[in-house]
This record gives sequence, C-alpha cells and structure tokens, in this order.
Amino acid sequence: MTTELNRLKDFMTACQARVEQALDRRLPPAGKLPARLHQAMRYATLEGGKRLRPLLTYATGQALDVSLDTLDAPACAVEFIHVYSLIHDDLPAMDDDDLRRGKPTCHVQFDEATAILAGDALQALAFEVLASDPQLDVPPARRVAMIDCLAKAAGAGGMVGGQAIDLASVGLQLDLPALELMHIHKTGALIRASVRLAALARAGLDPEIGERLDHYAKCIGLAFQIQDDILDEESDTATLGKTQGKDRAQNKPTYPALLGLAGAKQKAREMHEQAVAALEPLGERADLLRALSLFIIQRRN
Amino acid sequence: MTTELNRLKDFMTACQARVEQALDRRLPPAGKLPARLHQAMRYATLEGGKRLRPLLTYATGQALDVSLDTLDAPACAVEFIHVYSLIHDDLPAMDDDDLRRGKPTCHVQFDEATAILAGDALQALAFEVLASDPQLDVPPARRVAMIDCLAKAAGAGGMVGGQAIDLASVGLQLDLPALELMHIHKTGALIRASVRLAALARAGLDPEIGERLDHYAKCIGLAFQIQDDILDEESDTATLGKTQGKDRAQNKPTYPALLGLAGAKQKAREMHEQAVAALEPLGERADLLRALSLFIIQRRN
Repeated sequence: MTTELNRLKDFMTACQARVEQALDRRLPPAGKLPARLHQAMRYATLEGGKRLRPLLTYATGQALDVSLDTLDAPACAVEFIHVYSLIHDDLPAMDDDDLRRGKPTCHVQFDEATAILAGDALQALAFEVLASDPQLDVPPARRVAMIDCLAKAAGAGGMVGGQAIDLASVGLQLDLPALELMHIHKTGALIRASVRLAALARAGLDPEIGERLDHYAKCIGLAFQIQDDILDEESDTATLGKTQGKDRAQNKPTYPALLGLAGAKQKAREMHEQAVAALEPLGERADLLRALSLFIIQRRN
Repeated sequence: MTTELNRLKDFMTACQARVEQALDRRLPPAGKLPARLHQAMRYATLEGGKRLRPLLTYATGQALDVSLDTLDAPACAVEFIHVYSLIHDDLPAMDDDDLRRGKPTCHVQFDEATAILAGDALQALAFEVLASDPQLDVPPARRVAMIDCLAKAAGAGGMVGGQAIDLASVGLQLDLPALELMHIHKTGALIRASVRLAALARAGLDPEIGERLDHYAKCIGLAFQIQDDILDEESDTATLGKTQGKDRAQNKPTYPALLGLAGAKQKAREMHEQAVAALEPLGERADLLRALSLFIIQRRN
C-alpha cells in the first residue's frame, strides 16, 4: 500500500494545483468592482483546504476515463458549494469560529455582511459554472442532470438540511441513527455529489457502476465525518487549522462520544473496507479512489 | 387605460393565486424534518409580497404564447431567489430590519442561524426547480440557458454584486451613474431574468423580440427602484409593510435625494414610456406587460 499512497500523494499534489488554477480562473478578478465582495470570495476559496471534494471528482473521472478538462467544472462547482457552506457555518450566528484553514475566517478578515454575500455569490457561481463552462464537454441533458444533482445535494434535502439538523441537535443526546442522519446530510450529500458529478460526465455509464460508486461515496462520507470527530478529540488547533475541541465544548454529539474513541476508529475502518469493496468491479482504475478512502481515515487534519 | 388596469388587476389576482400554489407545492412540507428550516422557508416565501417577478414571467410568457404550466417553474425560481435575498438582506449584519411584507422578518420570527440557512436552501431550490421540474416543457439546452441566466442574475455579477455595491455606498455621495449601476445589479438583474426566463421558454423566439423584451425589463427595473425610493420618502410603514424612511435614516443614496421628488417622478415616467415603446412590435399581446409597467410607477407599496 506504500506505493499506492505515494501515487496518491502525487495525484493529490497535481490535482490540488490543477483545481487551484481552475478555481482562480472561474472566480471574479480581485480588482473588478465590487472589489471587496470579489476579494472575499477569492480569500475564502483560494490557497486553502485539502480539496477533498475536487479530488474525489478527479479520481472518479479518472477511473471512468473522463477527460481532466471536462472534470474542472464539476470539481470547481462542488468546491464553491463547500467553501460557501464553510463561510456561512463560521458566522457568529452559526458556529462563530475565528479560524478556518489556518487563516482568520471570512467574516473576521472582512465583515459579516461581506461574508454572507460572498457565500451567496459562491453558491450562484457553482451553478453558473455547471450551466455555462465551455470546457465541460457533455450534452445539455447531462449538464441538467449535474445541476439537479448538485442543487439537491446542496439544499434543504442535503447539506443545508444537515446543518439545520446539526443546529437543532446541540446539547441533545442523539443516538447513532440520528447522528448518522445528520452527517449523511451535512457532509455526506456533497461528498456523494462530488463522485456522482464525475459519473454523470461519463457517457453511457453502466448503472451498476454508478450505484457502486455511490455506495463508495456514502461510505467514505461517513468515514470522513467519523475521522473529523476523532481529530476534534485527538488533534490540536495548529494541526487542524480550525479550533480544536469545539464540538465537545459546544456539547455537540460525536462518534467518539457515542462509541468511544476505539469504537469510532473501528467504525471508520469498517466504512473504509465497505468503500473499497464497492469498487471491486472497477479493478486497477479505481486505485486512486481506494487510496483516497484510506487517506480519509488516516489523515491528521 | 382604466380597462387595461382592471384587466391587469384580474391577471394579478389570478397569477398571485397561481404562483402561491406553485410555490407551496415546490417547498418542502412544514412537517418534514428538519421542520424548523422548512417552516422558515415557507414562512418567508408564502402569503407575501406583490410577486412582481413571477407576474413578469407570466405576463411575458402570455405575450409569447408559452403555456402557464411551463411558466410555473421559472416563476417560482425567480421568486425563491428574491425571497432568499430578502431574508439575507434583513439580517442584523446587513440591513437589520424587523419587518417585511407586514410580518416579522425571518430571523426575528425564527433565529439568525435558521434565517441564513433558509435563504441558502431557497437559492439551491431555485436551481433545482429549473433543473428538474417535470412541468417545465422545454428541451434540456433551454433549461441550461435558463439556469445560466438565473445564476448570472443572482450572483456576483448581478443581484449579490448590487447588494455589495449598496453596502459599500452607505454614507457616500453617489452620482446618478453610480446609483444606477447599483440598482441595475441589485434589483434590475433579477427583474430582467424574470422576463428573460419566460422568453427562453419560447421555442424559436425572434432575437429582436428578445432584445426588445430585455430593454423593457431594464426600463421597468429602474422605474421600480425609483418608485421604491419615492415610496420610502412619501409613504408610511403600515402601507409599505416594511420600515419607512429607512434609506434616508441610513444615509443611503436615493433618486429623490439626487433628483428631487419631482425629478424622480419625472424619471420614473420616462422609464415607463421607454418600456412601453420597446413593446411596440408585440401589439395587443403585450398589453399586460404595458399595464404592469404603469402599475410599477403608480403603486403605493
């Protein structure tokens, strides 16, 4: 697996550089009016994060022989949605966080009004990119399917719904199914969309492969969240790039709180194993997706 | 013109009832989890407002012989975007308003976090409706064009950009071109999209007609904003359904401040005349659009 992880490291570095440039080109220029809005959009989006969602889009596309040029638009679209959600989640009225990706959060660096608007504009930009990006080489019906997929993943039935469940559950004693329902919406929906958008970019995809990829995405989505909870317990603020121990301090339900630290780690491993099993018919082409799944449960930030 | 205004009144009443039902059917049920989010989305959207943007969509579609069934989705989409922008604009970090459409604003009725999320979810829902509504009877390429149009109108190059210019201009002495630039973005972009989405729903539209409708929409967009400024000076809080005199109190630039009240009224009339002139080749079919333009500069709230 060392070779696999080395290959993954190279792939991650290459994709992170690629998506950085793709995001940069699709964001409004910092000098264009209204400059403060554009600067806030760029500040929150560029030079930050692991880019897990774009990585999943590129890795899935690679497994299905979709061109990198076609994958840039969906990779940017999922990242724009993710970044907007982080900006809004960090607001004083929400999680009230000062630190994100090792930098002051958007409302700290700019102001609350600008942060709200930057998030709003990034959400619109995600859909604009899918609707009009000239590099995205798919027929209109598939663009529509991609937009529908992203809108459902982002909205009340997906990410925003999960955030609302999260807000409603602070201080409550959630059981495992309730905790899982929250995460399936809050982070899982967009992770699934990251994989599904790449699958939708593939002409004539075997539906069984589509379903297996979706199961893979569901499993790594949960594994990602479990590992997030574990890191919130075990890591420190400098390594995380965001405030450590926040969930516990806010009395939020977490996997370690419900299963213990060892139980949570065991569950993350099980999710990884299920994810890898789902990829079986894809053979070697899915090695990057397998390595990404392993990376998710081994990451330290 | 009395007959025209009576016909308009009937049309408005019928369309307002129609769009109310169409919005209701497309919003998540109030009882479904996360209930508080869904309730906030419904509270902010239903039973409120003049529905100017849906009216424009229906009236344009009517002028072009597009079926009402096909127009429901774009009418709802523009209204969802409009309502989300009102929710976010009213937040304490933005305009900090307690009253909207005669009711407590969303963050007052619920809470700030829920209001932010309800706005976010309504934006996603607007794109979901255009992408997947089964009633919208247009080929995929035209759905994509509609989504692109709405995304551009809603984002940094449109409505959100206008809101950012507005924020940046509080307390500044804007000249007329700068004030106009703000309004062209802040309210004009979505009003133009309301007309353009209906035009995009029409197969084989003569491009000249498309351009004339767009010019009509630009003119009524400005007329609408001028009248808004006039009402903010002349009307009272009870009639407006929102806090009167707010712009002046916040030292925001307005048309009456720049042109005087008589000058602002004159400019609104000129915009109405230009709008009506643009509709000339459409003949009688555009009577409702003409009456809507007149309504915009005669309305009292």
